[in-house]
Amino acid sequence: MLKNDLLIKAAKGLDVSRPPIWLMRQAGRVLPEYRATRSKAKNFLDFVKNPELACEVSIQPVDILGVDAAIIFSDILVIPEAMGLPYQMIEAKGPWFENTIKTKFDIDALKIADATDLNYVIKAIELTKKELNNRVPLIGFAGAPFTIFAYMIEGSGSKTFSKAKQFLYTQPELSHQLLDKITQSTIHYLKAQVEAGADLIQIFDSWAGVLTEQMFYEFSLNYISKICNAISSLVPVTIFAKDAHYAIEEISKTSCSVIGLDWTINPTIARQQGINKTLQGNVDPCLLYADEKKIISETQVMLNAFGKQKYICNLGHGLYPDIDKEKVKFFVDFVKNYNYNL
Amino acid sequence: MLKNDLLIKAAKGLDVSRPPIWLMRQAGRVLPEYRATRSKAKNFLDFVKNPELACEVSIQPVDILGVDAAIIFSDILVIPEAMGLPYQMIEAKGPWFENTIKTKFDIDALKIADATDLNYVIKAIELTKKELNNRVPLIGFAGAPFTIFAYMIEGSGSKTFSKAKQFLYTQPELSHQLLDKITQSTIHYLKAQVEAGADLIQIFDSWAGVLTEQMFYEFSLNYISKICNAISSLVPVTIFAKDAHYAIEEISKTSCSVIGLDWTINPTIARQQGINKTLQGNVDPCLLYADEKKIISETQVMLNAFGKQKYICNLGHGLYPDIDKEKVKFFVDFVKNYNYNL
Repeated sequence: MLKNDLLIKAAKGLDVSRPPIWLMRQAGRVLPEYRATRSKAKNFLDFVKNPELACEVSIQPVDILGVDAAIIFSDILVIPEAMGLPYQMIEAKGPWFENTIKTKFDIDALKIADATDLNYVIKAIELTKKELNNRVPLIGFAGAPFTIFAYMIEGSGSKTFSKAKQFLYTQPELSHQLLDKITQSTIHYLKAQVEAGADLIQIFDSWAGVLTEQMFYEFSLNYISKICNAISSLVPVTIFAKDAHYAIEEISKTSCSVIGLDWTINPTIARQQGINKTLQGNVDPCLLYADEKKIISETQVMLNAFGKQKYICNLGHGLYPDIDKEKVKFFVDFVKNYNYNL
Repeated sequence: MLKNDLLIKAAKGLDVSRPPIWLMRQAGRVLPEYRATRSKAKNFLDFVKNPELACEVSIQPVDILGVDAAIIFSDILVIPEAMGLPYQMIEAKGPWFENTIKTKFDIDALKIADATDLNYVIKAIELTKKELNNRVPLIGFAGAPFTIFAYMIEGSGSKTFSKAKQFLYTQPELSHQLLDKITQSTIHYLKAQVEAGADLIQIFDSWAGVLTEQMFYEFSLNYISKICNAISSLVPVTIFAKDAHYAIEEISKTSCSVIGLDWTINPTIARQQGINKTLQGNVDPCLLYADEKKIISETQVMLNAFGKQKYICNLGHGLYPDIDKEKVKFFVDFVKNYNYNL
């Protein structure tokens, strides 16, 4: 039994004494303690693949920031690697794939990953669950199939992901074949995460914003929805489709429990569009560069707009590495102690 | 008198026989003819500062693609340079400023640019007007003050513009001082463009999307609105605030004539929100990677959704350099010959 089950109750729409808070990229460079652990590994992928180190940094924000959930430290691109498309994480540049997907032959050569291919993540979850000792829930996650697809075609990050989009426009059938393989792999992966102890699953569609509305529904939400259907009877699922501002109503029709919102979304409008779902978000991470007075005034506006129930406090995107840890802590404390009745 | 005044009539909301079409970045690398002219200059800035070459590439798309307007070839970052903050355009990387704005001292040291500081653009406009010989209108442009501000603080492109946003959050008064200086410079610049013959002015807020809604109104739209008020009695003004999906109603309250839309905006919703304004956009540039059948089907949907009047056909962002020129021409021809009555 979880000692702090605020996140799970809020996700399920049950009444809570206060909204839970956790932060995207809370297990990350914003914490000096993370950087110390990170320095024990040769490179980023060795770090990701080391269950002990992954466990260590996953728990740090619970101890240091006092957040209401841990999220397992990993990377969304472990899925392409498990399917047979390895990558490197290049310092200050981001992910890079030596081989990319160009043809039907490339797609056919990919395997559908199962949990054994991602055993190191599963071990990290088991270990983290044990070490957390039920203090707070543990969040598992995966990238949305379209975001994974985008990297597999593009081979690296991109402002436009124009190669990935070109593939969607010129090879829609092959695109669906690849998205289907990624989706099957992701379902295997997430089911294993839940079996290992993940209490909630978040799906990150980091690059949804490069798509048109119709393409998002056809090539992204369709597959996210399949993942939801496979997982949502086991644990609550959160969908975070960054910059898909038009899609809140459609997302709310899936079997997800929570809709993550980026900082460009007006909470009041999201409440009208995301009926019956719990909302998560959505402070601009850059607010945490401001002084405490400004953090308080903006956070108050946001908390009041979302209201106390069916709400999980978070940022509208991940923490940036150069944000001051003390500011993050101040923000977390302010949210946890906010008095809605004043 | 303009021989083809479709753009100006549509911008003013007057009835047209068909919607005009032009394309963002039509004077660009998508045309082999542009690349040939470009190779005559030592580097990008020499190219921008050469009125004869700028004139040549501005007219090319009118001759080659048959678009209904020319847009003067230039760069939004000529404004910081004219204010005393020079930059370089680094191949395959983008703009780079050796010095950036960090303090009140840096802001005080900037001059308010006047037209003489940007004489090369004014000359290019005069020359292009003369060479166009009134075949089609000539569009002048400038970056929105926030987008210019973002580069002046950040010093280069960025996915997040987190330094620029940090400045807004921590130094709001200095931010307004800098934005005001940029705005005054831009008004001088655009008035001179109109005097030199520009028939319509477009303001590009390329990085609006990194802001929250409230920040966009305070730090961006306020200043865009001042520019509109200074220019809109002279020629029609188009505001294109990329990714500011929430702002269409507020933009429509300015004195602009046209609202530019990126490809994530649903035309039907934009029609409801942008009442009384002409709309411009918004095909995904990547559609032009597709085959002709797909280009036709998607373009038809868009044209029907916008309707024939109060509409300027364009992309939702600039052309990408690797798009096939023949596909661009096919798209332009299809739009020009589209029969709304079938």
